[in-house]
Amino acid sequence: MIIVMQAGAMPDDLDQVLRRVESLGLRPHVIVGTERTVVAVVGDERGAASSGLESLAGVASVLPILAPYKVASREVQAEPTVVRAGSLIVGGGRIGVIAGPCSVEGREQIVETARAVRDAGATGLRGGAFNPQTSTYSFQGLKEQGLELLAEAREATGLAIVTEVVAPEDVPLVGRYADVLQIGARNMQNYRLLEAVGRTRLPVLLKRGPAATMEEFLLAAEYVLAGGNRNVMLCERGIRTFETHTRFTLPLATVPWLQARTHLPVVVDPSHGTGHANLVERMAAASVAAGADGLIVEVHPDPAKAASDGAQTLDVPSFRRMMDVCRRVAAAVGREIG
Amino acid sequence: MIIVMQAGAMPDDLDQVLRRVESLGLRPHVIVGTERTVVAVVGDERGAASSGLESLAGVASVLPILAPYKVASREVQAEPTVVRAGSLIVGGGRIGVIAGPCSVEGREQIVETARAVRDAGATGLRGGAFNPQTSTYSFQGLKEQGLELLAEAREATGLAIVTEVVAPEDVPLVGRYADVLQIGARNMQNYRLLEAVGRTRLPVLLKRGPAATMEEFLLAAEYVLAGGNRNVMLCERGIRTFETHTRFTLPLATVPWLQARTHLPVVVDPSHGTGHANLVERMAAASVAAGADGLIVEVHPDPAKAASDGAQTLDVPSFRRMMDVCRRVAAAVGREIG
Amino acid sequence: MIIVMQAGAMPDDLDQVLRRVESLGLRPHVIVGTERTVVAVVGDERGAASSGLESLAGVASVLPILAPYKVASREVQAEPTVVRAGSLIVGGGRIGVIAGPCSVEGREQIVETARAVRDAGATGLRGGAFNPQTSTYSFQGLKEQGLELLAEAREATGLAIVTEVVAPEDVPLVGRYADVLQIGARNMQNYRLLEAVGRTRLPVLLKRGPAATMEEFLLAAEYVLAGGNRNVMLCERGIRTFETHTRFTLPLATVPWLQARTHLPVVVDPSHGTGHANLVERMAAASVAAGADGLIVEVHPDPAKAASDGAQTLDVPSFRRMMDVCRRVAAAVGREIG
Amino acid sequence: MIIVMQAGAMPDDLDQVLRRVESLGLRPHVIVGTERTVVAVVGDERGAASSGLESLAGVASVLPILAPYKVASREVQAEPTVVRAGSLIVGGGRIGVIAGPCSVEGREQIVETARAVRDAGATGLRGGAFNPQTSTYSFQGLKEQGLELLAEAREATGLAIVTEVVAPEDVPLVGRYADVLQIGARNMQNYRLLEAVGRTRLPVLLKRGPAATMEEFLLAAEYVLAGGNRNVMLCERGIRTFETHTRFTLPLATVPWLQARTHLPVVVDPSHGTGHANLVERMAAASVAAGADGLIVEVHPDPAKAASDGAQTLDVPSFRRMMDVCRRVAAAVGREIG
Repeated sequence: MIIVMQAGAMPDDLDQVLRRVESLGLRPHVIVGTERTVVAVVGDERGAASSGLESLAGVASVLPILAPYKVASREVQAEPTVVRAGSLIVGGGRIGVIAGPCSVEGREQIVETARAVRDAGATGLRGGAFNPQTSTYSFQGLKEQGLELLAEAREATGLAIVTEVVAPEDVPLVGRYADVLQIGARNMQNYRLLEAVGRTRLPVLLKRGPAATMEEFLLAAEYVLAGGNRNVMLCERGIRTFETHTRFTLPLATVPWLQARTHLPVVVDPSHGTGHANLVERMAAASVAAGADGLIVEVHPDPAKAASDGAQTLDVPSFRRMMDVCRRVAAAVGREIG
Repeated sequence: MIIVMQAGAMPDDLDQVLRRVESLGLRPHVIVGTERTVVAVVGDERGAASSGLESLAGVASVLPILAPYKVASREVQAEPTVVRAGSLIVGGGRIGVIAGPCSVEGREQIVETARAVRDAGATGLRGGAFNPQTSTYSFQGLKEQGLELLAEAREATGLAIVTEVVAPEDVPLVGRYADVLQIGARNMQNYRLLEAVGRTRLPVLLKRGPAATMEEFLLAAEYVLAGGNRNVMLCERGIRTFETHTRFTLPLATVPWLQARTHLPVVVDPSHGTGHANLVERMAAASVAAGADGLIVEVHPDPAKAASDGAQTLDVPSFRRMMDVCRRVAAAVGREIG
Repeated sequence: MIIVMQAGAMPDDLDQVLRRVESLGLRPHVIVGTERTVVAVVGDERGAASSGLESLAGVASVLPILAPYKVASREVQAEPTVVRAGSLIVGGGRIGVIAGPCSVEGREQIVETARAVRDAGATGLRGGAFNPQTSTYSFQGLKEQGLELLAEAREATGLAIVTEVVAPEDVPLVGRYADVLQIGARNMQNYRLLEAVGRTRLPVLLKRGPAATMEEFLLAAEYVLAGGNRNVMLCERGIRTFETHTRFTLPLATVPWLQARTHLPVVVDPSHGTGHANLVERMAAASVAAGADGLIVEVHPDPAKAASDGAQTLDVPSFRRMMDVCRRVAAAVGREIG
Repeated sequence: MIIVMQAGAMPDDLDQVLRRVESLGLRPHVIVGTERTVVAVVGDERGAASSGLESLAGVASVLPILAPYKVASREVQAEPTVVRAGSLIVGGGRIGVIAGPCSVEGREQIVETARAVRDAGATGLRGGAFNPQTSTYSFQGLKEQGLELLAEAREATGLAIVTEVVAPEDVPLVGRYADVLQIGARNMQNYRLLEAVGRTRLPVLLKRGPAATMEEFLLAAEYVLAGGNRNVMLCERGIRTFETHTRFTLPLATVPWLQARTHLPVVVDPSHGTGHANLVERMAAASVAAGADGLIVEVHPDPAKAASDGAQTLDVPSFRRMMDVCRRVAAAVGREIG
């Protein structure tokens, strides 16, 4: 880390900083400038309880240098991780597409949707059985019955099942049915849950929290990885900004930024990322052009009757059109869908 | 809700909207304007799966009218809720101050801090035993041993214990020691956890998530209230914005805004809200002037050696000064600390 | 507009609201709901000084219905505007690419860059002669000498010149040299300047301010259009959010959102939108896939020596690669570059 | 500045960085760490076109150390600047209150308001004659006639006139009538305008842009100061965030943060900062508690009929109440209003 001293810092202030740095087992280098003094600290600062340094007299600011994540880093593993779950392959030049309704509502709905999205080229089926809802008065999902219906849809279509798990105690149950465990954006920093899925060997789709920095996002992945589960997909699904014309703001530059720093594949969710069905096709195509390793998209046979998220859900013909465009864009950037 | 039709919407589009509204058990009123038609919908729209309406042909936008929270609302309970937990009183003109370290680190540290903050006028003791940490490599708290030390500190000082619970399965354990269960900002939308604390009758301090809207914040409280636990304190602790000179941006206008809409008391955390010890006193005073019903502040005998959050932690003399200023400001706005 | 009354509003409150609405020349429709009353107001609310309504007793909120912009709207002009400036064509299926350095630094630099970007397929040349700089101590541009060098570069290459104008009094001077007048993001709401360029008939490239909503952006365009100048291009160049790993957050969903509401073409600036050269190619490709009508990109023969914005500037070989990818993606979405 | 090299940077990369640093006239210090190498650069980096360094091979990031502003800095002038304009004193323990309507609408309105706010304790009168409006279709002010009415109000009350100037060419005209020139938030980075008011010796009230960082804010002040005009007041008026329940988010921690770094006084605008009249009193009181050197507040005899900003405008009795509270809070923090 770099410790910047105040312009008027006293020699005693500097001494105290140096002693504190050394007591953390780190080595300080003092650089005396014309206006102020800077202390460069070498060594692994990650474990250090370094935040206290800022409260020492004469310290203006403390700037970290090392990225705080390790196992997720390209510096630890150079080649990209490819996540495989049955029919679904994400990473390594293959773009996996996960499609389906926000919530599992019934047998016909989920099996019909599964067939339609598979025929259009999807290799994963999404569908919520445990639906975290902002309001306690909203539909919270069919629970285990929903999981059973997802398993039926898998049997009928061969699609890999991607479904959300919302609490550590549900991991065994959901893990019996799911091919991929989804961690929702609201739970990105639910560390107990991250540890629980980290103890399984099921692939995990980790959604970015709407206010999470890249560092926090990768450190959340690190909780799963540190448990020994290396099958983690990062999912950009939009951040909260001042924009209100879209539900969230979908910042696609995170795709190449992440890919330069982590070996984990990056999936984009243009449905939550925009909140409006008529923006999904274009943003799906843009995600592929930006280099996304996968897409997760909400599709329903009749969006106007969907139990949740209807406004951002594609109907089947729109999803087919989206897939056609995405296939062409994928080819244009040297990749392949499916 | 108000359904705004597109300028070029067809009569058939309008018919379909009206049929869909009626199928939701709601009553539509059509208002034909010079440029476009608007459908005003009367009735309780909260339960309606109304989001799908936006995906109907000819619909430009759907604007909700009713606030989606109920039990938290002033319209349901006009008089303010006063939360009492032993020595701690929050609401009804009394400003409760909860102070203490980020993490419980040891017996001497916590008991010494408890004595110091009580002597300065605090009526609650904060201290983390289960510390959610952004990095899996950071200190995660002393767990049950930490709870025992908090209980010792309570015995030594009479202060009410406010400590975080991070998972539903920990609620019974933490509930045996704590006087107030804190829900951290990262868990504001951990609904399983909210339901678990909603089943207890212990007061709950619910921290606002850094990207939570007022509606989401009150709906999170509604999860606790719906379980029958009416002892909820809302805690503003700062939001994530583009500002980087503070750790979060502390928006104090939420205090009067919330107080006009909910009967629940509002507590402010100027430590997390700023991230820098030298801004805490002023923002604590500002919170009191803005009408806060309580404060929660990080205090440590030696912030530079704190296991976590050192940069934003007051030492004891600074906390005493802060309390002196806050007492005078409280008097100026007709309230009382303690 | 929709006026939502408070749950406890008095009949007198409602009367006062109705009288005030009528005094604005608008027609109110009262809808009495189970929980609260709503007043739907029909007529052109744009001119009305309606903000005062919210301060009347008993009013909970006022929701606008009509978009406040007119001339920019698709409802006024259905077919897309195609902007032409010499070699540069933006809109109507043709994607114009404007490339060049942040600042004009000298004859060799600008002519060499112009040749290189033209050979790679650009049809417009960017280059700042009047550079608004955050710091008064930074290089502020070569002023008129810079304009002369841009004219020389046009002569040498045939490229259309796109350059920024920062003050109304400079419009005649800059207009003598430029083919397109650029309004920078900092000046998006400099109305005097917008009016000044609105009085010319030169095409205008209007950059979105980093905190501008879609409505504010379109209303800024409306200032130019209202002056009679219909040749306006909107430019998305990133917004300010909590993200720090990129200079701004580039929200590409604005491209299809705007195209659905306005006939004006939409250009994207992936250089300012990311701030890092190694993210530009991917975000340029994503912009094309999202449907952008144009790109504006910073290119310099030696970015490490650029007088400004070096970190986000492509060198010539990188720009060539970017153009190759963009051409393929454009073909994939049925459009053409150049 | 600190240049952080990538973990896999080559010796040649480092050499190139060192040569480039030296060519900028700065002195590099190389610190070789276990994981990566860091180059600390000493000397005045402000003038350096350092952004290009990031584009050199092997460079991970470039962190500035020195604050880029100079004349505004406490390091240059330790004692606080006190701005005086007739009756108005801002800074040095005196809290100046500037009150009045958004727009000057007529003689009676402005003189009546001036008398009322003076009687309540205000020492400055605000009122827009040149009103920048988001929409070209809104009321744009009475122009010079408005300035004349402001001068009449000054004559009638003795209050100092604070009014906005929106373009460099208007500075002489507005300067003939105004005691303080206000630069609006939209023009915070209108550098030509900043330079124009910097050439006068009239006090300047510089409003923070809604997306401006502290650094950009102080650098905007620096444009005025660099012209030789030292009478600059900084005005916090709220930033744009994801919050929609207030018009802007008012971050009061900027008050003590700024006061620790600059000698310029800091004024707060709780009217624009909240957008709702019923939040103004509390936020005005909070501003005083946070240490503000001044307040600027919108007041109108009949807010429901105000030509602009009615929703956030206090009526006279509310302003009187606000002043009473603020006076008591000021005394509580050892300061005085007026």
